[in-house]
Amino acid sequence: MAPHYAPSLWARLPAMALMLEIIFIVLFAFFVETEEFKKTKNQEFLYLYANFQDVHVIVFLGFGFMSMFLVRYGFSGTGFGLLVAAMVVQWATFINAFLSSFHSSKDILVLVNAELCAASALVAMGAVHGKTNPAQLLLLGLLEVTGLVVNQGLIKKLFKNDTFNTTMQLHVFGALFGVMTSWVLYRSEAEPRHEKEKFDSKTGLFSTLGMLLLWMFWPSINFVEAQEIRIMYSTYLSLAVSAVTAMALSVLLSPKGKINLVHVQGAALAGGVAIGAIRTVLDPWVAMVIGMCATLLSTLGFRYMKDHMLFAFECHDTCGVLSVHAIPGILGWFADLFLQLVNTDDATIAIRFAVHYICILLISVSMSLVTGTITGFLLKLKFWKPQQDRKCFDDQAFWEFPHLAVHN
Amino acid sequence: MAPHYAPSLWARLPAMALMLEIIFIVLFAFFVETEEFKKTKNQEFLYLYANFQDVHVIVFLGFGFMSMFLVRYGFSGTGFGLLVAAMVVQWATFINAFLSSFHSSKDILVLVNAELCAASALVAMGAVHGKTNPAQLLLLGLLEVTGLVVNQGLIKKLFKNDTFNTTMQLHVFGALFGVMTSWVLYRSEAEPRHEKEKFDSKTGLFSTLGMLLLWMFWPSINFVEAQEIRIMYSTYLSLAVSAVTAMALSVLLSPKGKINLVHVQGAALAGGVAIGAIRTVLDPWVAMVIGMCATLLSTLGFRYMKDHMLFAFECHDTCGVLSVHAIPGILGWFADLFLQLVNTDDATIAIRFAVHYICILLISVSMSLVTGTITGFLLKLKFWKPQQDRKCFDDQAFWEFPHLAVHN
Amino acid sequence: MAPHYAPSLWARLPAMALMLEIIFIVLFAFFVETEEFKKTKNQEFLYLYANFQDVHVIVFLGFGFMSMFLVRYGFSGTGFGLLVAAMVVQWATFINAFLSSFHSSKDILVLVNAELCAASALVAMGAVHGKTNPAQLLLLGLLEVTGLVVNQGLIKKLFKNDTFNTTMQLHVFGALFGVMTSWVLYRSEAEPRHEKEKFDSKTGLFSTLGMLLLWMFWPSINFVEAQEIRIMYSTYLSLAVSAVTAMALSVLLSPKGKINLVHVQGAALAGGVAIGAIRTVLDPWVAMVIGMCATLLSTLGFRYMKDHMLFAFECHDTCGVLSVHAIPGILGWFADLFLQLVNTDDATIAIRFAVHYICILLISVSMSLVTGTITGFLLKLKFWKPQQDRKCFDDQAFWEFPHLAVHN
Repeated sequence: MAPHYAPSLWARLPAMALMLEIIFIVLFAFFVETEEFKKTKNQEFLYLYANFQDVHVIVFLGFGFMSMFLVRYGFSGTGFGLLVAAMVVQWATFINAFLSSFHSSKDILVLVNAELCAASALVAMGAVHGKTNPAQLLLLGLLEVTGLVVNQGLIKKLFKNDTFNTTMQLHVFGALFGVMTSWVLYRSEAEPRHEKEKFDSKTGLFSTLGMLLLWMFWPSINFVEAQEIRIMYSTYLSLAVSAVTAMALSVLLSPKGKINLVHVQGAALAGGVAIGAIRTVLDPWVAMVIGMCATLLSTLGFRYMKDHMLFAFECHDTCGVLSVHAIPGILGWFADLFLQLVNTDDATIAIRFAVHYICILLISVSMSLVTGTITGFLLKLKFWKPQQDRKCFDDQAFWEFPHLAVHN
Repeated sequence: MAPHYAPSLWARLPAMALMLEIIFIVLFAFFVETEEFKKTKNQEFLYLYANFQDVHVIVFLGFGFMSMFLVRYGFSGTGFGLLVAAMVVQWATFINAFLSSFHSSKDILVLVNAELCAASALVAMGAVHGKTNPAQLLLLGLLEVTGLVVNQGLIKKLFKNDTFNTTMQLHVFGALFGVMTSWVLYRSEAEPRHEKEKFDSKTGLFSTLGMLLLWMFWPSINFVEAQEIRIMYSTYLSLAVSAVTAMALSVLLSPKGKINLVHVQGAALAGGVAIGAIRTVLDPWVAMVIGMCATLLSTLGFRYMKDHMLFAFECHDTCGVLSVHAIPGILGWFADLFLQLVNTDDATIAIRFAVHYICILLISVSMSLVTGTITGFLLKLKFWKPQQDRKCFDDQAFWEFPHLAVHN
Repeated sequence: MAPHYAPSLWARLPAMALMLEIIFIVLFAFFVETEEFKKTKNQEFLYLYANFQDVHVIVFLGFGFMSMFLVRYGFSGTGFGLLVAAMVVQWATFINAFLSSFHSSKDILVLVNAELCAASALVAMGAVHGKTNPAQLLLLGLLEVTGLVVNQGLIKKLFKNDTFNTTMQLHVFGALFGVMTSWVLYRSEAEPRHEKEKFDSKTGLFSTLGMLLLWMFWPSINFVEAQEIRIMYSTYLSLAVSAVTAMALSVLLSPKGKINLVHVQGAALAGGVAIGAIRTVLDPWVAMVIGMCATLLSTLGFRYMKDHMLFAFECHDTCGVLSVHAIPGILGWFADLFLQLVNTDDATIAIRFAVHYICILLISVSMSLVTGTITGFLLKLKFWKPQQDRKCFDDQAFWEFPHLAVHN
């Protein structure tokens, strides 16, 4: 079987990746200038560099290792994460610069923005992990980021204000996009639930490592854009409450009174996602309440909605991105709206706020559903030669495997 | 058997954790204000943020992974570390703010302080790992931090000067507290030495990862309070000497001339602990000598004292915190006193110094022994329903286990 | 067999390591002063500290974990990496301070320099991993760094200008030194290719972790010396292209159309190594082209040259340092020369540049080949009692092993 499938990777991935790289190089040669990078050692850079490194760790190490809980999918989880993220940051650097008429291409913020886009693509990837080959993932990543950037441009143009919020869209857009793609790509033959879709005690520890990296550096990803210490502080407290609540709820909702590692890992991050969608000034205790609510919804999503989605809608969400990213993101968005309304006395402004928030959310959701579905149909083409059903969630479809590679 | 034990976790942990979270939220709502967090982008914050992140990594990733060498205790080691640390930082933030009449609640230093308290609780946990359930660990963490903060307040009040040193107390108080608790909780039936209390080649690598994170970021944890570059430099050199010496001594004291991974991991950190207790200006070579002595004592402690403690006093110290934290911390304290005496000509001042140092140490040690013993008796209550003896050092008592969770 | 070999470690390592430590302490006591470390909290330090931590992670965690892919060599890969690096930073701190008449011993740059030297020693170690004992590795590390520093001093003296470039030498000198040592130490009996010289799915993940740490923090290691943001940016883009290209080429050159983990890990770093050798201002697209070329050469090196070196020259290069460090480093050096020539109109200056560059490269290469060979012959002495052929690539030769250590 291996010889039957190996050629497909041979035939698609190298050509696609190398061609894209050459196109990117040409685009950079014509459209991206370097002379702006002369500013050195100033404090702004200092500030952003440490922050940027935290985001860097989240994108390239955290997401990769967290998606690695699948017992036979470790190499692919980290390797394809690196592949897609490395490709997407180049594309996002270019497209961000192009769309914004190069005005923000002047400093390290370009890279920060590119990495946030890459994070969004990795969230989308989380829903289809194990059911696609790397060439499909590359296309998915590029389309997701294009959709995200177009959506942001659209919202900016329509609403002409700064209610604009990347972090919310990062999570909600990415998660819904991925789920729709996964829905289109559903393989009925891969049921009953795939035997390889579980974790063992070692892959569980690797994904704990990834999850802790995300958990620890999440304050940085939330405040890298706004750069206000109170966002860092809110995220920190919210995540602390999330971690405790996630473990308590996992026990409470378990029939045997035991903790489920995967649920805890996802739900402990929900507080950070929710706070990321909020730009209002928060009292510490409000941040803690939001963290608790987000974790509650996320845990319920893991325990009940994930299977429901699978059986009722034939939609399989490998890493549970709907529960980790979409639901807490939307919760945070409404919490932000609620806080704005509470702080506003004028009814007209309050209504304007509410319309704004709901429209932005609706546009983002619609865009992600539509582009996700389109991407799904594009990826469903036989052209991509995805792995067989029985090779799903398995590194062996793509990697020269250790015990077969002694002579190398 | 599992059904017999699982309900105990169901009955205690969720109620306790959620109740505590709600209490914390109420306390924060009434007593912690947020308006002080308006200062942004100033250099002080910059400086502290990078440092704070290093401490963050040590507390949430380093300690968790280092305690993971036990072959079947990986999920619990990291998971319960996260649970307790996330709970303790909230409590410590509040209690520090409350005791200091909110004066220091104004910036990121509150968080740094809270994380140092959490580190102390994790040191205490190191002694009882594998023999307690998470509800017990939560209580232990909260009591330990309360004891630590009260002890600090007491010393501050009694001595009204700045000889006060958190780092020494962090290690010595935490380690002695944990050892006393473990002594009270001793289970004679768990002997002969538990078969699960060993490491394998994979868990050994995970704990190496945790140990290296501690080793690398230890300079940050030592100088985050004092913020003087020479403390960073002293710690760096001391740790370098420690790492080399630990490996040499492990071979020398081994009957077969081989290196013991667990001993090396503990002893290589001893130099950092010792320097943490010192506030005098050190010549580099003095820091190196102190690192070497601390490692020597720590290695001897691992080779001979750990078993002696077990057989003579029925006191079982899972991670050897006595050798890693208590002994080097006390050594550092006396080294600091010695250096102060050498630099002082006036006999009166010298005697005053000596009395101060020894009193502070005696008070801290007494407090930790007493509070640790009391905590031990509290945790021994049947109410907590700890795991059976044969489920010690085993994740299966608490976690939905991989091969049993296929259908989830 | 174990009792036969264990004594060798007992007899050599402790004596050597402790003696060296005592010598270092004496040298530091007489020659290194501490009073310069009074400057605190200034911005320069801030800037460098965050950077220094990244380099710290690369040296102590990244290299160690990346060399851990060997299935039974995990403890040794990380442990001996820590041992050698901790020893070498002390020696390099001293020797750098001594050779430069103490003028640069005033701030954190001393440590940065020492860590770059340690990185070079770890590169050299990569070629001999699994075939030497820790006492041999200690000697190799100290000699390599001495050779590197002497070579730098020589070049500085001869060329009296600032074309001087540590990063190029770090990689090229280290890799060639290691390969020559490995060539001298060749064990014909260890062929046919050692069965333990492969990876499994878990060690592969650990080495992925190490590789990602290197990949992520490489921009920091490249710009820590020059401290110009554009070097960071060039390295970042080059590495992104490298990661994508490495995966594409690995598939393309594989007979079965599958990805080889070890090749991808090495080749994805090649872009960073190449940019490290360049000090000219680069347009982003040029950096990307260089990254692509370096990855191409590196992948070809892994696929074809590594085996060729083994069969034709009896030279065994465990981690493929020739392909990861030497070739991309030399490519980058020539790319830098080429870019200098393109920017120069004056033919005289152009020729002077070319002569300079080629002479520096020739001197470095000759020095590394000669010192590496000499070191190889020193290490071949029976005195060192290396492990038997059948104990190569095996932790059991040096470590008290888990399942044998239950009683401890």
